[in-house]
Amino acid sequence: LDRLNERWQAANTLLCVGLDPDLDRLPPAVRDQPAGVAKFCIDIVDATAEFACAFKPQIAYFAAIGAERQLETVCGHIRDRHPTVPIILDAKRGDIGDTARLYAREAFERYGADAVTVNPYLGTDSLEPFLQWEGRGVVVLCRTSNAGSGEFQLRETDGVPLYEHVARRAAQDWARKGDVALVVGATYPAELARVRAIVGDMPIL
Amino acid sequence: LDRLNERWQAANTLLCVGLDPDLDRLPPAVRDQPAGVAKFCIDIVDATAEFACAFKPQIAYFAAIGAERQLETVCGHIRDRHPTVPIILDAKRGDIGDTARLYAREAFERYGADAVTVNPYLGTDSLEPFLQWEGRGVVVLCRTSNAGSGEFQLRETDGVPLYEHVARRAAQDWARKGDVALVVGATYPAELARVRAIVGDMPIL
Repeated sequence: LDRLNERWQAANTLLCVGLDPDLDRLPPAVRDQPAGVAKFCIDIVDATAEFACAFKPQIAYFAAIGAERQLETVCGHIRDRHPTVPIILDAKRGDIGDTARLYAREAFERYGADAVTVNPYLGTDSLEPFLQWEGRGVVVLCRTSNAGSGEFQLRETDGVPLYEHVARRAAQDWARKGDVALVVGATYPAELARVRAIVGDMPIL
Repeated sequence: LDRLNERWQAANTLLCVGLDPDLDRLPPAVRDQPAGVAKFCIDIVDATAEFACAFKPQIAYFAAIGAERQLETVCGHIRDRHPTVPIILDAKRGDIGDTARLYAREAFERYGADAVTVNPYLGTDSLEPFLQWEGRGVVVLCRTSNAGSGEFQLRETDGVPLYEHVARRAAQDWARKGDVALVVGATYPAELARVRAIVGDMPIL
């Protein structure tokens, strides 16, 4: 959170630059060269770094084509050349304790990410292995941007929808255990306002 | 579902063999050899195949140490040598449509898995890219085995806890769109019975 704060103040930007290299949409000249995906992402990184508050690579695009080494290269490049811009690994991981511990190593150790997105469905104990990493951030899915996200996230208990319960737990519990932020889709501005009211100045992705 | 059915009838077993190669707990002789993790898993696979209804590699153990190629090797070995034993990739993926499509490719195309575990928090549209794969299975988290799983999964709407809403959606909607199973921890036998009553003969992991 300190790194994020420093960055958005120093660069005066809240822009998070996503890196979602969809092979089917890349030019053949990029697609067909070895490490073409890494090079494509690095070009975007270098062109946008001065305006970026954070970089957010989406791991699925690399995993689908067996390009984890290229993701390592992209993250290494960001850390080396743009060390003040935090990396948020968009992985939406979520698993029981022992396994969550390994996903935290994947994000923070292997890729050197500053933060990782996670799914809250399994509860607090599934988030703790991520929260325990000193100086790394945990970005919890709260109210996602997709059309069908209300199916479970809007279910109300005691007059409060599930996503608000997640926001409350984030503010009241998880934020005491580590550096926490939330994913809230800007597709639902009224709900974004409700989350903001609950979490104060917690960062929202 | 047909493959699973054939297997459990032919081999008279409901045993799912997990492959969770925790590097910290492997002997140095295994750990230090190239592809040692793959070899360790393959030895387990060959020793247990006759008793196995399915193999379930947990991808986090491979991802934490950058061993995706070794996971490919293990899955390839199962398909080649034990082609009647389905592979359930335990990945607990969950993301919006475009990204879910890539995670489905990761599981079904890259690793050749017969099924993959997924997280329902984002709703039906996040599951559809998995359900659309003809002849592949989608194993949805319902009531997980961890101690803190009740935090959100037990929240009741209209007197029905969240995990039961997931089970109902699985039975009434998702099962019409593809091959669906559910994850229910045997740590909660009464709830397992409730899910069974809702989903009929749908497989439960």
